[in-house]
Amino acid sequence: MTQTSDYGPFFPHSRKVYVNGTQPGVRVPFREIELAHTINHDGTENRNAPIRVYDTAGPNTEGPLPALRAPWIAGRNHATQLEYARAGTITPEMEFAAIRESVAPEFVRDEIAAGRAIIPLNRKHPEAEPMIIGRKFRTKINANIGNSALGSSIPEELEKMRWSILWGADTVMDLSTGKDIHETREAILRHCPTPIGTVPLYRALQKVDGDVNKLSWEVYRDTLIEQAEQGVDYFTIHAGVLKKHVPLAAKRLIGIVSRGGSIMAQWMQNKGQESFLYTHFEDICKIMQAYDITFSLGDGLRPGCLADANDEAQFGELKTLGELTQLAWKHGCQVMIEGPGHVPMHLIKENMDRQLEDCFEAPFYTLGPLVTDLAAGYDHLNSAIGGALIGWYGCAMLCYVTPKEHLGLPNKEDVREGVVAHKIAAHAADLAKGIPNAQDRDNAISKARFEFRWEDQFNLCFDPERARRFREQSMPPGEKFDVKQRYCSMCGEKFCSMRINHDLRREG
Amino acid sequence: MTQTSDYGPFFPHSRKVYVNGTQPGVRVPFREIELAHTINHDGTENRNAPIRVYDTAGPNTEGPLPALRAPWIAGRNHATQLEYARAGTITPEMEFAAIRESVAPEFVRDEIAAGRAIIPLNRKHPEAEPMIIGRKFRTKINANIGNSALGSSIPEELEKMRWSILWGADTVMDLSTGKDIHETREAILRHCPTPIGTVPLYRALQKVDGDVNKLSWEVYRDTLIEQAEQGVDYFTIHAGVLKKHVPLAAKRLIGIVSRGGSIMAQWMQNKGQESFLYTHFEDICKIMQAYDITFSLGDGLRPGCLADANDEAQFGELKTLGELTQLAWKHGCQVMIEGPGHVPMHLIKENMDRQLEDCFEAPFYTLGPLVTDLAAGYDHLNSAIGGALIGWYGCAMLCYVTPKEHLGLPNKEDVREGVVAHKIAAHAADLAKGIPNAQDRDNAISKARFEFRWEDQFNLCFDPERARRFREQSMPPGEKFDVKQRYCSMCGEKFCSMRINHDLRREG
Repeated sequence: MTQTSDYGPFFPHSRKVYVNGTQPGVRVPFREIELAHTINHDGTENRNAPIRVYDTAGPNTEGPLPALRAPWIAGRNHATQLEYARAGTITPEMEFAAIRESVAPEFVRDEIAAGRAIIPLNRKHPEAEPMIIGRKFRTKINANIGNSALGSSIPEELEKMRWSILWGADTVMDLSTGKDIHETREAILRHCPTPIGTVPLYRALQKVDGDVNKLSWEVYRDTLIEQAEQGVDYFTIHAGVLKKHVPLAAKRLIGIVSRGGSIMAQWMQNKGQESFLYTHFEDICKIMQAYDITFSLGDGLRPGCLADANDEAQFGELKTLGELTQLAWKHGCQVMIEGPGHVPMHLIKENMDRQLEDCFEAPFYTLGPLVTDLAAGYDHLNSAIGGALIGWYGCAMLCYVTPKEHLGLPNKEDVREGVVAHKIAAHAADLAKGIPNAQDRDNAISKARFEFRWEDQFNLCFDPERARRFREQSMPPGEKFDVKQRYCSMCGEKFCSMRINHDLRREG
Repeated sequence: MTQTSDYGPFFPHSRKVYVNGTQPGVRVPFREIELAHTINHDGTENRNAPIRVYDTAGPNTEGPLPALRAPWIAGRNHATQLEYARAGTITPEMEFAAIRESVAPEFVRDEIAAGRAIIPLNRKHPEAEPMIIGRKFRTKINANIGNSALGSSIPEELEKMRWSILWGADTVMDLSTGKDIHETREAILRHCPTPIGTVPLYRALQKVDGDVNKLSWEVYRDTLIEQAEQGVDYFTIHAGVLKKHVPLAAKRLIGIVSRGGSIMAQWMQNKGQESFLYTHFEDICKIMQAYDITFSLGDGLRPGCLADANDEAQFGELKTLGELTQLAWKHGCQVMIEGPGHVPMHLIKENMDRQLEDCFEAPFYTLGPLVTDLAAGYDHLNSAIGGALIGWYGCAMLCYVTPKEHLGLPNKEDVREGVVAHKIAAHAADLAKGIPNAQDRDNAISKARFEFRWEDQFNLCFDPERARRFREQSMPPGEKFDVKQRYCSMCGEKFCSMRINHDLRREG
């Protein structure tokens, strides 16, 4: 076994391997975790096959990424993945995603054709590695990065992006609302191997100096095109917040908590007009189609507290999002739907069921849900509870929440904590919804646990470095952790059930 | 509003208040969180009623606790709470627990009489404040403390106990297996206002120098009596692991992971005899009845990995635990049943349903369940997912799991993290199962969030100190957090949806 890793110090004994597809250039990365041998009671050894896991980390380079998809895009009409799928074509992107998921490319194509799954890839983001979002595939997670007026810089945001995907984020949203918003986005796109999402309204508002009254379709359209040209893969667009919904939200305990939703509500109230995102929706579709940018239809009226969950405002908007989904599909655009928010556990399933029905099975992408309002400082955990549940029920992607939610902008450690929390939730969902072979890695770590293969136990975890550090920390003063120890400080040697089990088997 | 707190620096603006019952000495503590006024748009103020929450922290004293229950116990026949309830008597303990739960004392009595709830209180632990465990009441959480051969001391364990109940543990288990096991337990009992549980088998094994073959009913019985005399409130007894179950567990991926279960399996295998815990069960019942110690029937065959969940071994033992429950009830003893372990989400409900059926609705007390095997370093979060779910389905008490699970003995910060994680899970369960008024505190914090009452947002959380610290940490360099700020660094002022909402309401 080598001591090195292609993933740096946080993932020891991991190497990058590739599986080639049938189409030119389809070369799909996996992270392979090498395992130690099992040492049997009689001293003989058995090899443990390495465990191959889904890999989001991208090429290991500091510079701009190679344009992996450039040859595929060059040889193509301006059709979207949805249009290709409807026409029966399996694009290289679909084959790539199929290999990542260990499913047939035809299955990927059919799910996309039905609108039940998406491959969010802007033609202008050739660096990205194709991936699929849909409830019949592995549950994905998104990490939000981005500066605010109160802090952060381009190198810091690049670092957060790399950090997010190292820990396993499947997509990254750049939610910058601070300075150098354009340059930050450009830097992220040229260095990011996952799809990138944005909320163009933030930039549009910034262009008009934060004055909601100066927002207009023209400013917004120009912003869309600017970001489309840069290569953004999906746009959050809060086109479902209509004039008629605003009075419904006014009845709430805490009103509108979505930034995009509150901006549009204020615009409509001040102007007395319907939302330009709604009235110009087909114009937006044309832009989205031209780049194959995916709609992430924003839930501007998501509940911001338990008391506002599953109310008339939220479900009213959801109906509108369903209408817009059909309109986008008519234009050949891919669509996913954003969801809440703060929802107590017993109301989560209704969210999923209604979304599937009202939005015709377009993939659902939720923020949490958070299952209580009381967990500031622990909201990543709060979100993991709701996220695991809604993932099991059919949500396709979970937006991470960090421990800083409700309190401030996450730092690097918060990002790691948020990503890993949601990796756990997404994996729990995959196990529960029966994704084939999802349990293989669990079985491998449990076998390693039983055999006191500490290195393998660490390396198979979602966060090997933290597991090892905690193991080392819990040694008695003066003693040092030895990977050959056949017990831990939790029970000590005499009370170690694992040790007793081995005795039982040896004697039995 | 005062600046002081009866709960020390971690819970600002909290004071201890008492509600008196009708019976002498019934004086039930609550923690009351004082809130700031709401400042309206026109400058007028509205008072916000303080929020009263369940209080586990006990009297604020460094020394041994007063013997709150001594007068009640003195005037009493040697009947158990179960026997009193069956006879129609509402004991002071039942009234105390009823006030804590805001329910009628008759309801408490009837749930206990039916075996659906327990008040785990040894006659010899008069310092403890009565509390009830049952699925129609608030979901409870247990914190494990205790040393191992590899570390910790009496003062450290006392400190962990106080720390656990400060953060909200409802019961504490002393799982010491190291040195000074008797003295550690004595110190904890005399200073702990919550019920204390132990696993007497650990001490029995220690008495015979860790040699399983020297374990005997006599050694075990003497250990039970010794700990009963000290005042332990509930005993984990792995009497359900029978000879016939051992071969079933041998088929597993990782065998038996319960320490008690593996010790008894080894004893049975070595001796070729049935477990003395099973053959002497009625003798045990007589001891338990004499002190009103509650059975916590241990799940010695709980699954230690997903692959072993819901198997024949586990459910075989559960059936036996049901038989033993009826036997214990016949002797007037109170009973709860311990549960898993590692279980994927879709198999959790079967655990709850079978437990209710096979064990005749005796309260269920589970460790997790952990919903994946891959979360070492984050197992508190992993356990919170499964715990929230099984709590919603009807589990009465969650045993906490700390971030050190599978790796080592938790330190003080791990205990805090573990307790708070499970407070969140238990509260999420209470919201979902519809405990009356469970949402009041959520509504109060959301209102505070909407009104930028930062102090109240912190103080209403499960961990006010951490929330405040995270808020302060996320300020830009050179700026200091001011509780009057009407935004946070997550969005900055211009993009603050809460600020926009206020503008909307003011203008609307």
